[in-house]
Amino acid sequence: MTYRPPVDDIMSTLKAAVDLDGLIESGLYDGLDEDTVRAVVEEAGRFGSEVLDPLNFLGDQAGSQLADGVVTTPDGWKEAYQKFTEAGWSALPCPEAYGGQNLPGVVAMAVCEIWNSSNLSFGLCPLLTQGAIDALAAHGSDALKETYLPKMISGEWTGTMNLTEPQAGSDLRGIKTKAVPQGDGTYRISGTKIFITYGEHELTENIIHFVLARLPDAPKGTRGISLFLVPKFLVNDDGTLGPRNDVNCVGVENKLGIHASPTCVMSYGDGDGAIGYLIGEENRGLNTMFIMMNQARLAVGVQGVSIAERATQRAADYAAERRQGHGAGVAKGEMAPIVAHADVRRTLLTMRSMTQAARAICLVTARELDKAERLTDDKARDGAAHMSALLTPIAKAFSTDIGCEVASMGLQIHGGMGFVEETGAAQYYRDARILPIYEGTNGIQAIDLVTRKLPLEGGAVIKAYIAELQQVADDVTASNQAEFGATGQRLGEAVGALQEATEWMGKMLVSNPDAALASATPYLRLFGLAAGGSYLAKGALAAAREADGTGDAMMLARFFAANLLTAAPGLAQTVLTGADAVLDVAPDRLTA
Amino acid sequence: MTYRPPVDDIMSTLKAAVDLDGLIESGLYDGLDEDTVRAVVEEAGRFGSEVLDPLNFLGDQAGSQLADGVVTTPDGWKEAYQKFTEAGWSALPCPEAYGGQNLPGVVAMAVCEIWNSSNLSFGLCPLLTQGAIDALAAHGSDALKETYLPKMISGEWTGTMNLTEPQAGSDLRGIKTKAVPQGDGTYRISGTKIFITYGEHELTENIIHFVLARLPDAPKGTRGISLFLVPKFLVNDDGTLGPRNDVNCVGVENKLGIHASPTCVMSYGDGDGAIGYLIGEENRGLNTMFIMMNQARLAVGVQGVSIAERATQRAADYAAERRQGHGAGVAKGEMAPIVAHADVRRTLLTMRSMTQAARAICLVTARELDKAERLTDDKARDGAAHMSALLTPIAKAFSTDIGCEVASMGLQIHGGMGFVEETGAAQYYRDARILPIYEGTNGIQAIDLVTRKLPLEGGAVIKAYIAELQQVADDVTASNQAEFGATGQRLGEAVGALQEATEWMGKMLVSNPDAALASATPYLRLFGLAAGGSYLAKGALAAAREADGTGDAMMLARFFAANLLTAAPGLAQTVLTGADAVLDVAPDRLTA
Repeated sequence: MTYRPPVDDIMSTLKAAVDLDGLIESGLYDGLDEDTVRAVVEEAGRFGSEVLDPLNFLGDQAGSQLADGVVTTPDGWKEAYQKFTEAGWSALPCPEAYGGQNLPGVVAMAVCEIWNSSNLSFGLCPLLTQGAIDALAAHGSDALKETYLPKMISGEWTGTMNLTEPQAGSDLRGIKTKAVPQGDGTYRISGTKIFITYGEHELTENIIHFVLARLPDAPKGTRGISLFLVPKFLVNDDGTLGPRNDVNCVGVENKLGIHASPTCVMSYGDGDGAIGYLIGEENRGLNTMFIMMNQARLAVGVQGVSIAERATQRAADYAAERRQGHGAGVAKGEMAPIVAHADVRRTLLTMRSMTQAARAICLVTARELDKAERLTDDKARDGAAHMSALLTPIAKAFSTDIGCEVASMGLQIHGGMGFVEETGAAQYYRDARILPIYEGTNGIQAIDLVTRKLPLEGGAVIKAYIAELQQVADDVTASNQAEFGATGQRLGEAVGALQEATEWMGKMLVSNPDAALASATPYLRLFGLAAGGSYLAKGALAAAREADGTGDAMMLARFFAANLLTAAPGLAQTVLTGADAVLDVAPDRLTA
Repeated sequence: MTYRPPVDDIMSTLKAAVDLDGLIESGLYDGLDEDTVRAVVEEAGRFGSEVLDPLNFLGDQAGSQLADGVVTTPDGWKEAYQKFTEAGWSALPCPEAYGGQNLPGVVAMAVCEIWNSSNLSFGLCPLLTQGAIDALAAHGSDALKETYLPKMISGEWTGTMNLTEPQAGSDLRGIKTKAVPQGDGTYRISGTKIFITYGEHELTENIIHFVLARLPDAPKGTRGISLFLVPKFLVNDDGTLGPRNDVNCVGVENKLGIHASPTCVMSYGDGDGAIGYLIGEENRGLNTMFIMMNQARLAVGVQGVSIAERATQRAADYAAERRQGHGAGVAKGEMAPIVAHADVRRTLLTMRSMTQAARAICLVTARELDKAERLTDDKARDGAAHMSALLTPIAKAFSTDIGCEVASMGLQIHGGMGFVEETGAAQYYRDARILPIYEGTNGIQAIDLVTRKLPLEGGAVIKAYIAELQQVADDVTASNQAEFGATGQRLGEAVGALQEATEWMGKMLVSNPDAALASATPYLRLFGLAAGGSYLAKGALAAAREADGTGDAMMLARFFAANLLTAAPGLAQTVLTGADAVLDVAPDRLTA
């Protein structure tokens, strides 16, 4: 059951939902063409299925191990990482000036999906390094950039994000790690950071930590946090490695999933303090970090797509092979493959359509980030920045919820075998479960969506987006394609529900913000469904324009509309009328 | 974070949803009184929290281990089992003639919830033994009953159910295990059985296996399956143990969860064949086994309640203790307990209300089983048998889906700590995942509900049940209690949706059975929501009649109606209009 890179699904999403042709034509991507994009995706698919996927189960079983401060990744990991960097995959979306290939984010995210479908634990390493590269490229001094970027882009060194401390998780106000200026432009860092992905490993000769800390005189709260670059080994002026810095891995978590990805407890400054270099301005670290976080949030959303895709493939294979029960076209006394059972088909269609919907949401978000970075017209660029800001929490939270749900359905299709680890379905279920948590829990994404993103530009951003979704519903209805069934109607109802819930949110943010917070999670789900259903319908419309039939796109759009978009009006009702039943309950009534 | 037995929640469910007072008054329970029931539940709660709960995490970490055919349970298991039987817990609902206490099923199921909240892996052992006891008591010969029942009821020996073979899981037609009559009333059994819970262990001196097998001349299919009792050690005429029988544990599965419960591969007849004794008639084994399965299906539903309750308690404790973010009444610069955040309260309310709803469904099902067993009027008894048959798939599937969902929410409330095994939330998430699979997957429960249960008595059973639910909605509306908010309306809409979907199912079963199968799963969910919402409302109505306020019952009923019953109309729409989008897809379009 080898991973099959879903090249056609990715390419059709890039063309229909993302409008790759239009982007290429507009010159946004400097002469990139569709064939090149396809070739990159195909090549990544080969690498993922041939090199990374075969290590996935073994990596889960072995895990990364800590002994005497040294973390050892599973057998084969180091060789795979070597091949990965040699093939240039770490440099994909990075600036050319430092050795990158400057490929657009939409392509990088399509490829990111493939790494994480093949091997989520492996994929995390380049994912976090990319976030660090982005922050350094955007805010680092030229000296820091020249010293660190080329090696990080080539993959010779990896990067980490050090935010969380035991008392400071979702709320970074509580950060206590100290940074003391040494008068020579450097700082001495001391403190403990937890949940540091690939905080220590032996894949590369150096690891570059990006660490949030407080200066001695820093203001309280989030406006007193600064960002520092802290290399594991100091770097000499000639670029060679100097002495070991005062940073150590003192623990690796025993986790539910992603066993091969070492989640480290990092101790800074057990001696004189780790030497660190300021990135960006003092006390502005959180703003700098947000650059890493936005990219990372989208990438985590993509991981949701990845695990959903992989779980779906494995379940489909099993459903074709496992025989139980009667089925049409099967001789009496023989058993039918379980895919013949309508309930199994319903499950597989749910899995496939949810996956494709989430994929589209993520890639559209990536497009908006590309536009926000590359457009030259200020207004258009700002518009894209706002749109990407609006969509990032949906991409992160909806896709990762989907990832868990689809992984669970995949396990269920296996019956009793799904609960046995050797089948592999259970690993996806375990691995997926971190996704709604890290890079901002999905509850926080919902709050971000409602309180920060809906108000953007006085509500004009969400208004424009809903109009886009409505246009798709209208197009479906106008297309008069019988194959769509009730898709146009269901989509129209879903968009209408989103519109109604959005208006309610707008009012509540003014008159009763707690109510907006109480309804944020069902609102986000509604948003994701309406957006996802719209992109699937867009895919079906595009397919209907092709000569060779509407294929899977129509099948998925119709299924999603008839079976999943039906939840939209009820979600709107929950948003509009459910909050009081939450807010009237005093916190201590829910705790013993 | 010790388990706190939810005695009040259980008792209020028994009183409001189950009508314990009425049952006692009617004489169904031979002089049992409420105080006795409460005392039993409280005492079980003490045993669960003091003896079983402390072993739960350790048992998960250690697991049961197989070496040289011997299965060793985790440290403390044997002592706990000893205490369990000494306290008489294994004899609770069993016939007095063989040493049982003859307590009603509703009490046994309430207590079953407690064992499985405390320790799901432990709870499985008495759960399966109980099923075996029921089958033997109902269908065994007097000689078999006299030899085996007293020891099984006292807990000196445990029982197992041996149905599944590698090629025969959901579809038992494929069973190949052989039983050859020896002419002396015994049979020689040979074959391999998988997924045998507590198939081997060292807790007791003997294990009594209940095994499905085929006679040499048996008809093909399910009408050629017989049920045999196969003891691990043969029993001499004087009741002492004789030689070891030809049955061995040859493997223990490496599973996602319930690590301490050994899931065994059992090999029968490596030598001359294991000696077995027929239970019931030849070729009627499946009917006999169904007695065990119905009881076991309800008990598995109860396990869903158990894990949901435990996960909710742990999450509530964490939400009270963990501090992040701002909150009303918290000094500036300080952090609030996360339960202060509306989104966390929404999650906890979802968890609590779903748990209490599923608990009511299970206990009402247990009541109907009690009535079916104890009523003397034929018609009333048959009516109860039909009602219990209707509700069993809801109790099993809805409650176990809820179990997984609530366990997942509990993990989410812990944030990053939830993904770390030492917190314990991850174990509930892993343990819960077997529940929608074993004792008939939830997909099969949905099919059973739609194809076998809805047609009972020409549809009169479901009709009467829906009328019951409607009555509760009417009572809520008539109560004119402002605290209910829109509960009456939401419940009325949900019952209306169930009614509409049920009518559609009735038509489809005649004209297009595949459509009924394709919509079975969303139909079951709709059923569970309407039933659960109704029982919660019944609880609130009962509480409103009390002098001391409506308490948690009203809070949960209102939340469930305003936030979860809102899904009902959309589910009905899915049932009515979603099936074609499944059935039009040929199986091979979903497999590569």
